[in-house]
Amino acid sequence: MNPPLSPVSDLLDYATALFAAAGCDGDKPATIAAGLVEADLLGHTTHGMQLAAAYLKELEAGGMTAHGEPDVIADRGAAVTWDGRKLPGVWLATRAVTLAVERAALHGQATVVIRRSHHIGCLAAFLQRATDRGMMVLIASSDPAVASVAPIGGRKAVFTPDPFAIGIPTDNDPILIDVSASITTNGLATRLRREGKTFPGAWALDAAGKVTDNPEALFADPPGTLLPTGGTDHGHKGYALALMVEALTQGLGGFGRADAPDGWGASVFVQVWDPAAFGGADAFRTQMGWTATACRESPPVPGGDAVRLPGQRGLDRKRRALAEGVALYPGILASLEPFAEKFGVPSPKT
Amino acid sequence: MNPPLSPVSDLLDYATALFAAAGCDGDKPATIAAGLVEADLLGHTTHGMQLAAAYLKELEAGGMTAHGEPDVIADRGAAVTWDGRKLPGVWLATRAVTLAVERAALHGQATVVIRRSHHIGCLAAFLQRATDRGMMVLIASSDPAVASVAPIGGRKAVFTPDPFAIGIPTDNDPILIDVSASITTNGLATRLRREGKTFPGAWALDAAGKVTDNPEALFADPPGTLLPTGGTDHGHKGYALALMVEALTQGLGGFGRADAPDGWGASVFVQVWDPAAFGGADAFRTQMGWTATACRESPPVPGGDAVRLPGQRGLDRKRRALAEGVALYPGILASLEPFAEKFGVPSPKT
Repeated sequence: MNPPLSPVSDLLDYATALFAAAGCDGDKPATIAAGLVEADLLGHTTHGMQLAAAYLKELEAGGMTAHGEPDVIADRGAAVTWDGRKLPGVWLATRAVTLAVERAALHGQATVVIRRSHHIGCLAAFLQRATDRGMMVLIASSDPAVASVAPIGGRKAVFTPDPFAIGIPTDNDPILIDVSASITTNGLATRLRREGKTFPGAWALDAAGKVTDNPEALFADPPGTLLPTGGTDHGHKGYALALMVEALTQGLGGFGRADAPDGWGASVFVQVWDPAAFGGADAFRTQMGWTATACRESPPVPGGDAVRLPGQRGLDRKRRALAEGVALYPGILASLEPFAEKFGVPSPKT
Repeated sequence: MNPPLSPVSDLLDYATALFAAAGCDGDKPATIAAGLVEADLLGHTTHGMQLAAAYLKELEAGGMTAHGEPDVIADRGAAVTWDGRKLPGVWLATRAVTLAVERAALHGQATVVIRRSHHIGCLAAFLQRATDRGMMVLIASSDPAVASVAPIGGRKAVFTPDPFAIGIPTDNDPILIDVSASITTNGLATRLRREGKTFPGAWALDAAGKVTDNPEALFADPPGTLLPTGGTDHGHKGYALALMVEALTQGLGGFGRADAPDGWGASVFVQVWDPAAFGGADAFRTQMGWTATACRESPPVPGGDAVRLPGQRGLDRKRRALAEGVALYPGILASLEPFAEKFGVPSPKT
């Protein structure tokens, strides 16, 4: 049985009303709603509206700041640093990408770093804000308060999965990448564990350092760890990616694990390049269009489907959802009902 | 039997004399020598002096330009694009990192992109030019004239291994990352094939798309392909990294596969961030020092050695080589003898 469909605008209105009722000021409710729903449209179901109930709880508990602006720590034109004051991360990340696009238009490229953001949701949800303007964007995020990924060869966690997303304009749909430095994420581990399932591969270590496909290992005491990308075979690559993301986010932000922060949060890095300032906007689209076509036309391995580009399936899903309505992953609307009741917000039509 | 040791300065003098005799002007011979020898000092033996004979052949054949400067395609202060005119890539990359460091000191961070460079050798060899100044650096390279890595799910190559290197200052030794978007590289495949060995894992596909550990598959007709990082289990991550590197190098450079270039070359991307312009230089070192220590102190998996940081072994090797002399990988000095004889350059003492 498929979950029922909601028109996207109803879902946006519903999420906006919930975050407004929870006390978020200004354009925060609509921006948070847009970022979360965008993730569901693209099929990132663990990082869309599934997060809304947790964010609403954080607002209630004071872990997420509902009012005001980030503090500007440094602004050198092409290099901007904010203290996010634990403001809603989806809102901060949206604004950071918008600012980086503006500054890249001025300086050719720009960096915006946010320390002490709250969780930013789905990184892929922000990419088209840059690619729609013909710009390339890289977004990375880490949470210095928690750790679930060990350096390769170790069995005590140092990193978060340290996701990074990349938007690349082409002569057609943009390429939308959203990957992490670990093989899998805490979100998927939590969902599989709840559903009594295992990882599709040996993606974790138990606390003793033994390879396992059981997500339960992550929740044991002491806990196991997620393996970096490349796993036991070549996990030094994922380890390198984790160090890159932690340096871009916490290193540049100047706030991180060394400060032993507590509570749910994020350190965020946004970089935008304007091809017009380099070899040219048309030349960029031509090159990446050629490469995208070459990927799609690479003949599939035996028994495989046609080669896809990152984001292709998500953009197809999004077009379908905008036309036909969006089906949320089971359990998400139920998780919001207590808040809807408390705030007197009517549930979306399905 | 270990190969004999040469004092590092003798090896530098030898390589400098060879490239000067081959016609390179100005500071090119010494800069190329420094970049290649640095790779050997760090233990990147496939990308150090092993390349010298091939470079000298390219100079002789006119595939590598011996004289002059790159053309400046665009210069927006924090965003610079060069046409490398097939000048020696090791020299171009050294200059690009130097310029990016200067510009990052002015603008907080800076990007330098080079189209039509010649091969740049070992990416890790350039990192300390930024980290010694307390800056973080990312270098990426691709060769649009060749392809050996297929998108995941495909069996026709679209990408080069697309290496990227990252230098991260800490409160102690810098972290020096040098990885590729594919599990392994053309250089290692060539060496293992010559030595009649196999890959340590299923790191390639034959032309039919079947997984193999035999490097011979890469040299068959039609050729097989190198698997992206993550392999058959989660190779969409390596595929994403390849797209990132091709976009940063060929997309921003505005020159690449769509132009069907021939000959050996490289598209190069250099990004430098100055922590002083963000959350602060001391704060950066503190954060990354904390994280580096946490990695080293993560208890090892059963039967494993202590966790190392990327670059740690290379920097130890380099210190030893500077004190005791450097041992080149077998066959390298022999490959240079024909050039040394032709140019009348005396071989280094061992």
